[in-house]
Amino acid sequence: MISIAIHGGAGTILRSSMTPEKEQAYKEALQAALNIGYSILEMGGTSLDAVEQAIRSLEDCPLFNAGRGSVFTADGTHEMDASIMDGKTLEAGAVAGVHGVKNPVSLARLVMEKSGHVMLAAKGAVDFAREMDCEFRDAEYFYDEFRFKQWQEVKGSDTFQLDHAAKKDEKFGTVGAVALDKAGNLAAATSTGGMTNKRFGRIGDSPVIGSGTYANNNTCAVSCTGSGEFFLRSVVAYDVSCLMEYKGLSLADATKETIQKRLLNIGGDGGLIAVDAKGNISLEFNTEGMYRACKNSKGLEEISIYEA
Amino acid sequence: MISIAIHGGAGTILRSSMTPEKEQAYKEALQAALNIGYSILEMGGTSLDAVEQAIRSLEDCPLFNAGRGSVFTADGTHEMDASIMDGKTLEAGAVAGVHGVKNPVSLARLVMEKSGHVMLAAKGAVDFAREMDCEFRDAEYFYDEFRFKQWQEVKGSDTFQLDHAAKKDEKFGTVGAVALDKAGNLAAATSTGGMTNKRFGRIGDSPVIGSGTYANNNTCAVSCTGSGEFFLRSVVAYDVSCLMEYKGLSLADATKETIQKRLLNIGGDGGLIAVDAKGNISLEFNTEGMYRACKNSKGLEEISIYEA
Repeated sequence: MISIAIHGGAGTILRSSMTPEKEQAYKEALQAALNIGYSILEMGGTSLDAVEQAIRSLEDCPLFNAGRGSVFTADGTHEMDASIMDGKTLEAGAVAGVHGVKNPVSLARLVMEKSGHVMLAAKGAVDFAREMDCEFRDAEYFYDEFRFKQWQEVKGSDTFQLDHAAKKDEKFGTVGAVALDKAGNLAAATSTGGMTNKRFGRIGDSPVIGSGTYANNNTCAVSCTGSGEFFLRSVVAYDVSCLMEYKGLSLADATKETIQKRLLNIGGDGGLIAVDAKGNISLEFNTEGMYRACKNSKGLEEISIYEA
Repeated sequence: MISIAIHGGAGTILRSSMTPEKEQAYKEALQAALNIGYSILEMGGTSLDAVEQAIRSLEDCPLFNAGRGSVFTADGTHEMDASIMDGKTLEAGAVAGVHGVKNPVSLARLVMEKSGHVMLAAKGAVDFAREMDCEFRDAEYFYDEFRFKQWQEVKGSDTFQLDHAAKKDEKFGTVGAVALDKAGNLAAATSTGGMTNKRFGRIGDSPVIGSGTYANNNTCAVSCTGSGEFFLRSVVAYDVSCLMEYKGLSLADATKETIQKRLLNIGGDGGLIAVDAKGNISLEFNTEGMYRACKNSKGLEEISIYEA
């Protein structure tokens, strides 16, 4: 059994602000990332490689708020966060507030495998990336006209936007992937460009092990997207794992409990993707939509944006 | 019922490298912090105020690796982390990699109450501290000869020390406090100066909600100290809460399970302090010692360093 699920953010994705062309472009980008990850699993590759490569594909696509498509901070720069976790060893790596790095998810993996640490931040994380010979890109690569306009609308104000916010198209811009490989190992990873007009070096849940990302072969692999502050306070990803391990819930019941009850109870919006050790997949969200796709070796394949 | 517990780090605290004078100094500092927190609870103050003020006292004392006594990074500076959580509202605040701020725990509380965010890092967090008119101190205030010598021993190498490491007196330098107030509200907070000769903007578990700090009126308040990377991977603080809520364990059994089994299974060293909604206290560690103290309104009072 092999399984993979990916997401490209959740939120108020209005059909009215979506053109058929735009919808098509999103679905094609999701399909491409799904195929990359699934092929790796099919050829006997590891779930770690599958989630990393699927996310690199989403990071390289300007449609999603991660990597190339990252939103602008209040300073007019980009501060990206990412994390990855190996369900077999419980090893994990994360970076917060990095700029110029082409693929933050791959930097997170290098943190896991080469740094002796779990989480590196800001300038120090960029120094580490240079020592590791990571690919860097200049400001032009990260410049996107749509993102720039988003920023211009709120620049100079105290307003920060969780990506396509400001009521029109309120979307929490994050990408994520979870997978189960042939060897039975789970992995999860998440990457984001944060919030438009973000200040003060704010860190959301995406680079935080336990909140935005978690993987454990005994339970599940989870990647979240949503109002990061609420996900941090709810320790969402590990909550799903604990509901399965300590309360005996199924993946479907655990993800429902966490997203539809516990997160909602404190006012948190968003969703998650998860896969368990048997290859079951859950795509749970309490917003109007979530860019998502999944595929397993039992014939399941889905690419969706709006609520079912 | 009121209860408070504090810690000043865990690790290999060798009696051979401890003089009676040094032991006395540590115990007096713990006693002073305990008294400050307990008096607040006794006068009907909140658990949030009690943990913040107890930690400020430990941060102001050069004996502990937090605030004034913070260790040196590889650059010869100080990068401090802190977090705080309110068990009543599940609100939380954290800062990572800040320098110059006299009391990082109070900055974490300002993040919780004034920023609209949960976690701020590095330069951005310092900018926020300036906007909030936090107290700053210059390099001289943070200079400590013992810390400087610790750094000189490993400076220029790839070695980083979890405070008093290098085999002599291996201690994970962190301070923490947990409390239950008369209104039945729990709170937890943690503060640290990180690792000697730290590089790359490394973030440990101390500023991470769920790993280093967690509080929830339904279960418990927890503050951790130890090998931060393992605490992050084990999501230690929230694990204790989940074992109580989802598996029905007592505070004592939950903290034992997390520290003596789950954390040890992946090779993690350290400990935690915890208090539950009934005022029970747990001081659990798998190292040779943990600087710790606790007091409740049923007559319990303890100040200890070594294993019982």
